[in-house]
Amino acid sequence: MGRNKIIAISGGVGGAKLAQGLAAEMNPTDLTVIVNTGDDSHHYGLFVTPDIDTQIYTLSGRADQERGWGRKDETWHAMDALRELGEDVWFNLGDKDLGVNLLRTMRLSRGDRLTDITRDFAQAFGLNETILPMCDEPVSTLLRCEDKDYDFHDWFVAARAEPRVTDILFRGAGEARMTVEVKEALADPDLAAIIVCPSNPYLSIAPILAVPGLKQALIDSPAPVVGITPVVGGKAIKGPTATMMQGFNVPVMAASAAALHTDIFDGYIIDELDQNQIEDFRTVTDGLPVRTANTMMVNLAAKRGLARAALAFADELAGC
Amino acid sequence: MGRNKIIAISGGVGGAKLAQGLAAEMNPTDLTVIVNTGDDSHHYGLFVTPDIDTQIYTLSGRADQERGWGRKDETWHAMDALRELGEDVWFNLGDKDLGVNLLRTMRLSRGDRLTDITRDFAQAFGLNETILPMCDEPVSTLLRCEDKDYDFHDWFVAARAEPRVTDILFRGAGEARMTVEVKEALADPDLAAIIVCPSNPYLSIAPILAVPGLKQALIDSPAPVVGITPVVGGKAIKGPTATMMQGFNVPVMAASAAALHTDIFDGYIIDELDQNQIEDFRTVTDGLPVRTANTMMVNLAAKRGLARAALAFADELAGC
Repeated sequence: MGRNKIIAISGGVGGAKLAQGLAAEMNPTDLTVIVNTGDDSHHYGLFVTPDIDTQIYTLSGRADQERGWGRKDETWHAMDALRELGEDVWFNLGDKDLGVNLLRTMRLSRGDRLTDITRDFAQAFGLNETILPMCDEPVSTLLRCEDKDYDFHDWFVAARAEPRVTDILFRGAGEARMTVEVKEALADPDLAAIIVCPSNPYLSIAPILAVPGLKQALIDSPAPVVGITPVVGGKAIKGPTATMMQGFNVPVMAASAAALHTDIFDGYIIDELDQNQIEDFRTVTDGLPVRTANTMMVNLAAKRGLARAALAFADELAGC
Repeated sequence: MGRNKIIAISGGVGGAKLAQGLAAEMNPTDLTVIVNTGDDSHHYGLFVTPDIDTQIYTLSGRADQERGWGRKDETWHAMDALRELGEDVWFNLGDKDLGVNLLRTMRLSRGDRLTDITRDFAQAFGLNETILPMCDEPVSTLLRCEDKDYDFHDWFVAARAEPRVTDILFRGAGEARMTVEVKEALADPDLAAIIVCPSNPYLSIAPILAVPGLKQALIDSPAPVVGITPVVGGKAIKGPTATMMQGFNVPVMAASAAALHTDIFDGYIIDELDQNQIEDFRTVTDGLPVRTANTMMVNLAAKRGLARAALAFADELAGC
């Protein structure tokens, strides 16, 4: 009783949708989103951190929801100029997005922390929620595939996530440190729940858990940790989760996603369409408490519904 | 006879206009423009070289002729994004312009020479003319004013060229070297004339002459060097030339501009409106040959007319 703080652990689009739902169901100043930065990289000399921007753009109403990334009402004149100069532009940055990435890159090169830059951008965009990068150190994802090694966007964008992944390395994660802000959020005595968003367990959740100490902090937290499936009806809602599971010879089902990080979860939500998988889920996850909900966040009502289900499950797990 | 190559020595807008006129009056493949890079600087982490871009944009029909800088049909969404994030944006870069500057900065950071990058950009934009930066090393202009020292754009853009200049330093010029391309262009046996465009003598021509060896190469060249006044009727056609002359207690007239670099000139063109200054001009410049022409390049016909006058004067000086 009286605990009012919520942490969401999130990747990009799916996590940002749930964060929107959570923010609408609570006092948004009590919501902290810890965001994956494992797919950060450099493009055109700029430091690009897609999941942070997706969070900020989504929560401030600036996201292009149809395209699924970047800003709405965006133009592409800078990329057109690069093409005109003969560049092979496969990574698109809109003009407004470029402005944001220019300023971030400038501030990073001055020595500012990504955490501080992100706070300032969120404030400038009018957010009441707190957006925290998982760490301030650069972490990058290397995908070891059957043919060769890929940097994340080389694989995800240029190669359309098609090459079969055999191993994933989070370069720099070992030298990263939990920030003061992440530590304090996780140790907050008012923390009521930690919601692990329906993000890619390999590419969005795993890098966050690879920051030394962060996974243990989730395990040790007295607040219940509730996971939400990124897989429904044998398919990933978005992105390459399902094909990666196939590549790793893992059944494409919610239980597989939960099992990947089972030690952090106190409970897990699978989609109501997968009701018939509950017994299998319990078997695979060694009895992890499970609930069903509509996890397809097709509109704000659905986002809020899933947020309510996750918060209620957390209350239940906490014995409220 | 048979000499067909022309070199133009140029700053930004005024020089680009004359280069347009020259290109229309000759085979453009025979025109080489050696361009000031003394007002290059860094903005938003990007390396910006305004005079080079003005040349390339103007000669390829991409310049915004009304605004006087940058590209036509330009948008400003990246700058808007910076403002939205609370930045004090006083140096504007359009979105298309940003694309060009992003690629240039990327290539410079890879170690490419500005000369090579400029050649590639000019080719991609379909130019037949050769655009050469005055050097590959970074040179920056420091304006010593009565109140303090200013970087070029801090003075020119942010302070609207208002603080009175007492001294001008071209930092890095002493360590710069003439490029192979500039040397070869100046030593070309087919060189018929060197036209010094009506650019600011303090801020556009002086930095070019500050590159070690370049001024002497102009003096030593067998091709006639024809200067063109940036001052007409006691006013500068564009930019701060006149106020700078006043600041230096120099009469605002063509003779003052010629006298600043008199040792490089074999002849000088003043405006036909200043016909009555010819005697004064001869006195001040110790008898430098002078002709009059319409130097106000208000349209392509006027640009071509001035180009013809300059080329004819050079032929005359060469004794053709």
